[in-house]
Amino acid sequence: MSTLRIGIAGISGRMGRLLAEEVLASGAQLAGGTSRSGGLEGVTLFSDTGALFAASDVVIDFTNAALAATHAALAATHRKPFVLGSSGLSVGQEAAVAQAAHVTPIVYAANFAPGVNLLFALAERMAAALPAEQYDAEIVEMHHRQKVDAPSGTAIGLGRAVARGRGTTLEECGMESGRDGHTGPRQTGAIGFAALRGGQVVGEHTLLFAAGNEQIALTHRSFDRRVYAVGAVRAARWVSTQAPGLYDMKHVLGMG
Amino acid sequence: MSTLRIGIAGISGRMGRLLAEEVLASGAQLAGGTSRSGGLEGVTLFSDTGALFAASDVVIDFTNAALAATHAALAATHRKPFVLGSSGLSVGQEAAVAQAAHVTPIVYAANFAPGVNLLFALAERMAAALPAEQYDAEIVEMHHRQKVDAPSGTAIGLGRAVARGRGTTLEECGMESGRDGHTGPRQTGAIGFAALRGGQVVGEHTLLFAAGNEQIALTHRSFDRRVYAVGAVRAARWVSTQAPGLYDMKHVLGMG
Amino acid sequence: MSTLRIGIAGISGRMGRLLAEEVLASGAQLAGGTSRSGGLEGVTLFSDTGALFAASDVVIDFTNAALAATHAALAATHRKPFVLGSSGLSVGQEAAVAQAAHVTPIVYAANFAPGVNLLFALAERMAAALPAEQYDAEIVEMHHRQKVDAPSGTAIGLGRAVARGRGTTLEECGMESGRDGHTGPRQTGAIGFAALRGGQVVGEHTLLFAAGNEQIALTHRSFDRRVYAVGAVRAARWVSTQAPGLYDMKHVLGMG
Amino acid sequence: MSTLRIGIAGISGRMGRLLAEEVLASGAQLAGGTSRSGGLEGVTLFSDTGALFAASDVVIDFTNAALAATHAALAATHRKPFVLGSSGLSVGQEAAVAQAAHVTPIVYAANFAPGVNLLFALAERMAAALPAEQYDAEIVEMHHRQKVDAPSGTAIGLGRAVARGRGTTLEECGMESGRDGHTGPRQTGAIGFAALRGGQVVGEHTLLFAAGNEQIALTHRSFDRRVYAVGAVRAARWVSTQAPGLYDMKHVLGMG
Repeated sequence: MSTLRIGIAGISGRMGRLLAEEVLASGAQLAGGTSRSGGLEGVTLFSDTGALFAASDVVIDFTNAALAATHAALAATHRKPFVLGSSGLSVGQEAAVAQAAHVTPIVYAANFAPGVNLLFALAERMAAALPAEQYDAEIVEMHHRQKVDAPSGTAIGLGRAVARGRGTTLEECGMESGRDGHTGPRQTGAIGFAALRGGQVVGEHTLLFAAGNEQIALTHRSFDRRVYAVGAVRAARWVSTQAPGLYDMKHVLGMG
Repeated sequence: MSTLRIGIAGISGRMGRLLAEEVLASGAQLAGGTSRSGGLEGVTLFSDTGALFAASDVVIDFTNAALAATHAALAATHRKPFVLGSSGLSVGQEAAVAQAAHVTPIVYAANFAPGVNLLFALAERMAAALPAEQYDAEIVEMHHRQKVDAPSGTAIGLGRAVARGRGTTLEECGMESGRDGHTGPRQTGAIGFAALRGGQVVGEHTLLFAAGNEQIALTHRSFDRRVYAVGAVRAARWVSTQAPGLYDMKHVLGMG
Repeated sequence: MSTLRIGIAGISGRMGRLLAEEVLASGAQLAGGTSRSGGLEGVTLFSDTGALFAASDVVIDFTNAALAATHAALAATHRKPFVLGSSGLSVGQEAAVAQAAHVTPIVYAANFAPGVNLLFALAERMAAALPAEQYDAEIVEMHHRQKVDAPSGTAIGLGRAVARGRGTTLEECGMESGRDGHTGPRQTGAIGFAALRGGQVVGEHTLLFAAGNEQIALTHRSFDRRVYAVGAVRAARWVSTQAPGLYDMKHVLGMG
Repeated sequence: MSTLRIGIAGISGRMGRLLAEEVLASGAQLAGGTSRSGGLEGVTLFSDTGALFAASDVVIDFTNAALAATHAALAATHRKPFVLGSSGLSVGQEAAVAQAAHVTPIVYAANFAPGVNLLFALAERMAAALPAEQYDAEIVEMHHRQKVDAPSGTAIGLGRAVARGRGTTLEECGMESGRDGHTGPRQTGAIGFAALRGGQVVGEHTLLFAAGNEQIALTHRSFDRRVYAVGAVRAARWVSTQAPGLYDMKHVLGMG
């Protein structure tokens, strides 16, 4: 059996470099990459993404939402599995990705950290088991001092998972985010959000279910952005043997 | 539809009183109980456990492992659902309970706190998703200063759940419990246990999976022993509508 | 030496009853109390607070800010030590208490839990040692679902202690409370506040200093309102041997 | 005023390199270093430690306990301030260091992380305020999976600080370390120790005081060994203006 050849779109960016390192660390072959800004020593650069797909068994792309539809279409054309980690896709861009996935297997996920995806799955299961009338759900996240918005996307993802577990939506549950001043008593069934900022924290999330007699908490801490690259390479290996279809990290991790 | 009549073996002990209170709080009818030491005001006392089964739709028993086989046989004789919360049953006693469960539905569990049972289920799932080579599993528990043994039974239960999730047993994984002195480096795949003692802590358990780049932790805190009574009454309501069989709290909670 | 006689204003309220229990548990004598609503079995009731002061060696008062000035004046008139736990006093009411303290020793504190007062002292010392440019201070509190305001008074007290340690005021530092939406990056030197609500949590406060390379956190958890009564009785014993003056719990605890 | 010249013993080791980077980052001048194994680009290497002292205003030494007495004597001969970070010194070696400190100022500390030293000071103060009969002290530490001993030196240092705060010694208090099996109830006044191992945790320590009604916990987390180098450079700057004497990090940090 030959070694899996993994190609990387945008290989000279911060995430691209981490991906390249993890491809090599995983024992796969680094097919090369594309780059707007210049090359990396000892890495094959392709002038266009089509050539990258042609030379690779799988391509990983964390570049930009604006390129997602084009790259997904190239994946379909070349019938090559594809791992897409860009965020902020529009509804139309997501539809184009789903269209391509009829022809070739695509993993598309908001967060490639295995632990965070496990967290989403566990959160849903916990919420399904713990009645919302008795167990108040609170989500706390902490990130570095430079982060400009709150709550984090992952915190909101956790909230959506809780709502799904309760058979409803986050909008239906109601968000109590950033309590300050006269808030009134907590609404039954609402999901609370609190954001801490400080130091250089990569990402820390806690989901707490608090009843009168017991509490259950689930906490995830990321220490290094590398964890996202490790997850993406794991997705690349997994998707290389799948049938066409649109997959999430929960499928990669066997949590589907 | 008539109200469910719940009977309680050993109704005048500390756990029996909590069970009686929770039966009433749940809207069920308190059929009465047995007691070695004397009665409770306004509660029907039966002179023998057979009479208790005859007068009840379900019986809850947290008395003593030595009585478990006899009580389970009475449940079978009277064809009444049975909730058994005694701990420390021998293999032979457990076999007798399983035998009775061919005739009548029985819930038999080591811990009736809904949250702890959810913890066991989540622990197994986490362990199945997180490779033992990368994610070191550590279990920390804290209990009041009077507790005389370590680690707690629930901590060991968590360890067994982790091992199950990895497709093996706690004995195969190896326990690193109570590290002190020259321990050598951590064994890959081993499960660590640490015990804190202090104050009047009812019970706190944390299961931590620690990899180089991320950590995931699951924590449960009990604030009141009442949580076990609440779980047992929930089990009684659930088992009253089941077919014969031996059930665990995970079935009651829909986590089977 | 005769036993200390402690009197309690408002002895039939929830806090009054706890205070009465703790007075007896401490080995002091319960001199009696005043009550608007009726008596307690076996407790001497006085028709007015003056009579209570006359019959007591020390009086504890957790009733109401509106009564604080009158009660402090009675303490001065009777030259009896006084423990005042009412909150929300106006500037004028606080001045009247300070006036009375020229004549008789008074302990006046916002929070009588020994641990919380220790927290205030430690917070100030931590803030003095950790430069605000490097260590971001964040305060998280959790309380039961019925609480209607955020952040808690104790959280704000912690923020004030941090500011004091930095040689400035909370107003100068700036509060970032209830982050939600587009917040922009964290302000250097600001103090962050986040509020969780759920279950029946009596009170939990964490003060976190987060730098790039290290974090230091201080956490306090109250499990029972009784801790406030225990602190007040300790204050009563301490104040009974002091010279006239206005004292805080930090003096009682030897942390002044 | 000329820039402070800092020299580094053992500059090519892992800690030596971090120290060299932090000297430059602090705006001080890197006077050079000694090395057994070879040089670093752009760094002046001295063939003996005496020459290093001659060319430096302060010298930092994290090399080896066996060299501590010789280096301290050289510091005294050259009348140069000295920062000593080696651990595991014998009583005789410590006496030699103290002897040299009669002539030149020396900072000698077991842990140069500002936060850890703050922790020691806070631990002592907490223990002084919280009666040992009511508040059980427990220390939990977590380190990477390669660590071969337990509890950590810093955990023991925390235990000693607690004992000091209680006016006694760790040996007098008694250590309950590594509870496992039938332990019997907790001894009043004993200090508990528990060790977790996993992942690549640089160092995490928690000191918990647990009473029946409240808990107070102090937690420190190191994310990067660099924090020790930063502390040592801070000590070097501080000691350069001191009178002869033996100092600890608490003096550097103004916590003495």
